Amino acid sequence: MNAELRTGTTFPAITDVRLTPILIADPPLLNLSGVHQPYTPRLIVEVEIEGGIVGVGETYGDTVYFERAAALAPELVGRSIGAVNSIGGIGRGASTLLDAQPAASGLRGALTTDKVRLSVLSAFEVAALDALGRYLGVPVHTLLGGKVRDRVEYSGYLFYKWAEHPVDDAPADDWGAALDPAGVVQLARKFFEYGGFRSFKLKGGVMPPDEEIAAIKALAAEFPGMPLRLDPNGGWSLPTALHVAQELTGVVEYLEDPAVTVADMAEVHRRTGIPLATNMIVTALDEVKPAFDQDAVQIVLSDHHYWGGLFATRDLAAVCRAYGRGLSMHSNTHLGISLAAMTHVAATVPDLEYACDSHYPWQSEDVVTERITFTEGAVTVPDAPGLGVTLDRDAVARLHERWNAMPHLHDRDDIAAMRRADPGYQDPGIPKY
Amino acid sequence: MNAELRTGTTFPAITDVRLTPILIADPPLLNLSGVHQPYTPRLIVEVEIEGGIVGVGETYGDTVYFERAAALAPELVGRSIGAVNSIGGIGRGASTLLDAQPAASGLRGALTTDKVRLSVLSAFEVAALDALGRYLGVPVHTLLGGKVRDRVEYSGYLFYKWAEHPVDDAPADDWGAALDPAGVVQLARKFFEYGGFRSFKLKGGVMPPDEEIAAIKALAAEFPGMPLRLDPNGGWSLPTALHVAQELTGVVEYLEDPAVTVADMAEVHRRTGIPLATNMIVTALDEVKPAFDQDAVQIVLSDHHYWGGLFATRDLAAVCRAYGRGLSMHSNTHLGISLAAMTHVAATVPDLEYACDSHYPWQSEDVVTERITFTEGAVTVPDAPGLGVTLDRDAVARLHERWNAMPHLHDRDDIAAMRRADPGYQDPGIPKY
Repeated sequence: MNAELRTGTTFPAITDVRLTPILIADPPLLNLSGVHQPYTPRLIVEVEIEGGIVGVGETYGDTVYFERAAALAPELVGRSIGAVNSIGGIGRGASTLLDAQPAASGLRGALTTDKVRLSVLSAFEVAALDALGRYLGVPVHTLLGGKVRDRVEYSGYLFYKWAEHPVDDAPADDWGAALDPAGVVQLARKFFEYGGFRSFKLKGGVMPPDEEIAAIKALAAEFPGMPLRLDPNGGWSLPTALHVAQELTGVVEYLEDPAVTVADMAEVHRRTGIPLATNMIVTALDEVKPAFDQDAVQIVLSDHHYWGGLFATRDLAAVCRAYGRGLSMHSNTHLGISLAAMTHVAATVPDLEYACDSHYPWQSEDVVTERITFTEGAVTVPDAPGLGVTLDRDAVARLHERWNAMPHLHDRDDIAAMRRADPGYQDPGIPKY
Repeated sequence: MNAELRTGTTFPAITDVRLTPILIADPPLLNLSGVHQPYTPRLIVEVEIEGGIVGVGETYGDTVYFERAAALAPELVGRSIGAVNSIGGIGRGASTLLDAQPAASGLRGALTTDKVRLSVLSAFEVAALDALGRYLGVPVHTLLGGKVRDRVEYSGYLFYKWAEHPVDDAPADDWGAALDPAGVVQLARKFFEYGGFRSFKLKGGVMPPDEEIAAIKALAAEFPGMPLRLDPNGGWSLPTALHVAQELTGVVEYLEDPAVTVADMAEVHRRTGIPLATNMIVTALDEVKPAFDQDAVQIVLSDHHYWGGLFATRDLAAVCRAYGRGLSMHSNTHLGISLAAMTHVAATVPDLEYACDSHYPWQSEDVVTERITFTEGAVTVPDAPGLGVTLDRDAVARLHERWNAMPHLHDRDDIAAMRRADPGYQDPGIPKY
């Protein structure tokens, strides 16, 4: 009997959780409901453990997330860093509907108190895994069972956009305007130059559907054989969705959320056969069965911020595998911490057949010391301990100062941002077209 | 920028995989198709990594498993111990049916080449996790995200049994005969004394159903309020299953595999409302959807030997969670290595609401230096590095010698064993009653 093996392993406890809301520059990207604000909120989470190691996480920074994070953070303190699974139970309880269509804050389908809780816990879990990885000297992907690939592919995430924000003192960007098919193709060329992307996604629901069909066909002509996606965030009526599906069958690899109900999604797929992806009708575990039962979704877009973390993302992948559904990855505005987390978990999922989405190329500011790069459309899986990123505390402090200075931007509101250009602008609602 | 973080983490590679088939003593336990042999085969897997650390795993030892393990073991050599997820891909390919009803070798539903592969890989993965845990100095449960409980509950697994094997030179046991309700209750008392179990399972399909109903009712009278289960291994016709379900609704917490088809299981549940568990109609990922769609199963009995390892067991738990199904754990004859592995993974699953099954109390021999004990029906989750068990190489060598000496027992065959007592015995087939 090996005496060493009689000794229980003890792990450091979490001693502190620091929450820092920040505002980061965001270009004037157009979507269904409006335009991105010049600055968008994110929440940076630091988890410190006995001995002083600090792990980092990142999630939504709007008030409802920040307040929930502040309420739940004390429950993290004192927990063993070796028991990451226990984080999912923090704050579990009855869930209530916050917003049936939270279009203004990021188009994630219905928002409930439990979805907010899981988004907060996702950052807690990522920070805890980063700390545990640093403590053990292993990358986060090892803590998820190890990588099965060395590179994770991302699609080039195209938006219709203005050349500049319609307000003074807004951040500038070099991407230029993209407001018609030629502009979208021009943007795609720049994206290809930037990251060598091997597939493209266009955020739709902005222009009349026939214009967006034309933009996709222009991309297909410019980049023959490249997988393409169009995502109107559920903004089309059933007839419109059917029309677009018929026009783009065989042109796109999938349509993303062409309609906003399970029944309409199911009908689009049944009548056209086009593969449908979603990050709107399946964003939590209780939404899986209804959508799968009706065959409304063929590809689920995972998102560790939605599902409660990296282990929860693995769990979603398992559910998709059991039910013969594809898996890809959704993105909202995020920084290098989340891109690292996305890359680690994506590296561990055996059957990830689609490139993941990432807004990262649009973010000119970051809170990590070294920007993550895309090569041939992929991010190399970090093998350094933890997430493999280093927090830039000066950047965090600077972006938090901005947050302090701009209270009117604490909640992302794409409709309000659009009103700065068009004071009479009204939420188009769903369906928009 | 922290220079340390630029360095990739490298893990030791697997340098050797040793496979040792053994025969272990097994009491004369009765089931649907016959009686356990005096000795039953198991396969011990040792995975050695650079630096000399050795991890251990255990799986089925019948010829079909041993031969597949021997064929796949070379593919493990050279792999990084930090990439356990990659093990699941070893040998993946087309699957063919080996046996539609492999009753003789352990009653696990239809057997395919892919199920054999996954059973082999389960031991490879457990051994790799044990090695990785020892290398990092952390328990296996930490490598699965960490424990959410400190004790894992097991049910007392009762069998009808003879006092002794009907052949010379067979191992003896002290449990005595159990062939009627009074004998079953007597056995349960001994089990309670042995491990303080808080629930009982009776292996059924042995006696005429009304005798088994009487045995369960006798247990309910002796242990009021204690959760009870009856498992005839799919051996009943639909009318018989319905009769038993009606008699035992409200008496058992669930019936396990009262019938052998998805349709019959679904009808038993629909007509009686009794919760049904299975380790026969859902034992691989492609069997999940048909059974869930028809509501044929309310509780899935996971088994890391079936599903391909501990991460695969976590995956199954996620599928059950998404579909509102309960999770418990199946057992076949196993030793301390597998009991440790079962306990580690069970400790990490948040919603494990039923006690797990284990044959372990029936095994008088073991290959670990220190037997695992049950206290108040539970095993304390090991916190030592790896699985927390130490291989007893002398025991392995001795049991392997027995395997060499008894080639006629290399494949478990409960029907052949029964013929030693009753030369005219025929496989009763399904349904038996």
